[in-house]
Amino acid sequence: MNATSFIDKLREAWQVRQSLVCVGLDPDLERMPVQYSRDSDGIAAFCEDIVDATHDLVCAYKPQIAYFAARGAEEALARTIAYIHKRCPRVPVILDAKRGDIGSTAEQYAAEAFDRYGADAVTVNPYLGGDSLQPFLRRADRGVIILCRTSNEGAADFQDLASEGQPLFERIAVQAASRWNTNGNCALVVGATWPAQLARVRSLVDDMPLLVPGVGAQGGDVEQLVRAGRTAAGGLIVNSSRAILYASNGDDAPAAARAATEALRVQINRYR
Amino acid sequence: MNATSFIDKLREAWQVRQSLVCVGLDPDLERMPVQYSRDSDGIAAFCEDIVDATHDLVCAYKPQIAYFAARGAEEALARTIAYIHKRCPRVPVILDAKRGDIGSTAEQYAAEAFDRYGADAVTVNPYLGGDSLQPFLRRADRGVIILCRTSNEGAADFQDLASEGQPLFERIAVQAASRWNTNGNCALVVGATWPAQLARVRSLVDDMPLLVPGVGAQGGDVEQLVRAGRTAAGGLIVNSSRAILYASNGDDAPAAARAATEALRVQINRYR
Repeated sequence: MNATSFIDKLREAWQVRQSLVCVGLDPDLERMPVQYSRDSDGIAAFCEDIVDATHDLVCAYKPQIAYFAARGAEEALARTIAYIHKRCPRVPVILDAKRGDIGSTAEQYAAEAFDRYGADAVTVNPYLGGDSLQPFLRRADRGVIILCRTSNEGAADFQDLASEGQPLFERIAVQAASRWNTNGNCALVVGATWPAQLARVRSLVDDMPLLVPGVGAQGGDVEQLVRAGRTAAGGLIVNSSRAILYASNGDDAPAAARAATEALRVQINRYR
Repeated sequence: MNATSFIDKLREAWQVRQSLVCVGLDPDLERMPVQYSRDSDGIAAFCEDIVDATHDLVCAYKPQIAYFAARGAEEALARTIAYIHKRCPRVPVILDAKRGDIGSTAEQYAAEAFDRYGADAVTVNPYLGGDSLQPFLRRADRGVIILCRTSNEGAADFQDLASEGQPLFERIAVQAASRWNTNGNCALVVGATWPAQLARVRSLVDDMPLLVPGVGAQGGDVEQLVRAGRTAAGGLIVNSSRAILYASNGDDAPAAARAATEALRVQINRYR
């Protein structure tokens, strides 16, 4: 299931699919198309239909665990990830969980993401420091996608605080490039809503992949983000969740999701 | 189940039980006493036996969700929390999850902790900024326990970075006291391993409760932490997990857990 490393899968998907689009799987019961039942089976069926409709157009899928966990739908999450591995085994799955804890507990979170769910990569929060990331970083074949400059307004509250002239998010980027990436399995989260910070991070981390949420519902500008973050191989994992999943509320939801994914893929490729 | 607010339950438990001890429920299959089966039923039975043996000696329980999630034992976590509410309804349950995400996702995490599991409080990570905490803070009857200065060595990596002369962890403490605590439902995590920082945080947050991990297995000094953080009402939630849960590996595990809990309670009260 994970015979190929996250980074190899990602690079291949960028090239073969000519796509930097990541579809975020955030199954919200209040917004899911009406034909799906409001339970674990309905959630899994919805996610599977989205995958069927989009798998040749994406470089990754990113299920957001909170949407499953809020409703006790861990089974649907496991089923969705297994389905992606079967349907499109060359497309990596990023579990968006933003975990972060001291070492002994971080070991358990790494087991949750990589062993229980079989995710190719997981998002993590660096607030607890470098040692808290080691249980993830040690898993050389899996991706560790570290929060750097997030897409929300409040990102500036702490991530921009400068010490010795260097904002915290830049320090995270420098640490990732210089110390945490010994296995070549690091990536960073930088919001599409902050193109200037995205360009700054790109300048600090060579060609490290950047996971970029915030296009679509959150309003990030595609041209600006692509110009700020692209690399020769691709460089970006541009996530869209709501604008794809909820493109239609009816029977044509999978077709509408496909159209929205393709439109974003084409729009991004215009500026690559 | 949560008719009384977290903070009221906590204050009552401090007084009635004369205890600042919180038992951390970190069920590790590799260390659990031999008589428990290595599955969800065994995990729940172990946690229930620990609760039976200690409930009159504690001010809170703190299940660590990672230990359950790594093994697909969400059912055992739900059963354990429901058992605590039934066995000792005046003792608050803190779900240690260290969640943190943008607003729409944070809503889902708040639903996970408070609605699905019925926890009285949850631990959260402030890296994403003030807006990311609002979905938790709005739940006035539930406690929001924000990471400030964590117990691990790497805590210094980012939490100590000073901007305009103020370390990040102190800024978090000031924000919690001055802006986030409008519902009176905030608390902070400060490691027992850092008594000087604990004293500094106490000086910044009046009588806000501080959740203090790091005694026992992590080596924090009880006298120093109590003197640094105590208030007239109590002020501290002193967590011990491994030193209590794994005090014995045999049939006497519950009795040994009780003895370890009582010893810590007495040791803390010597310095209150």
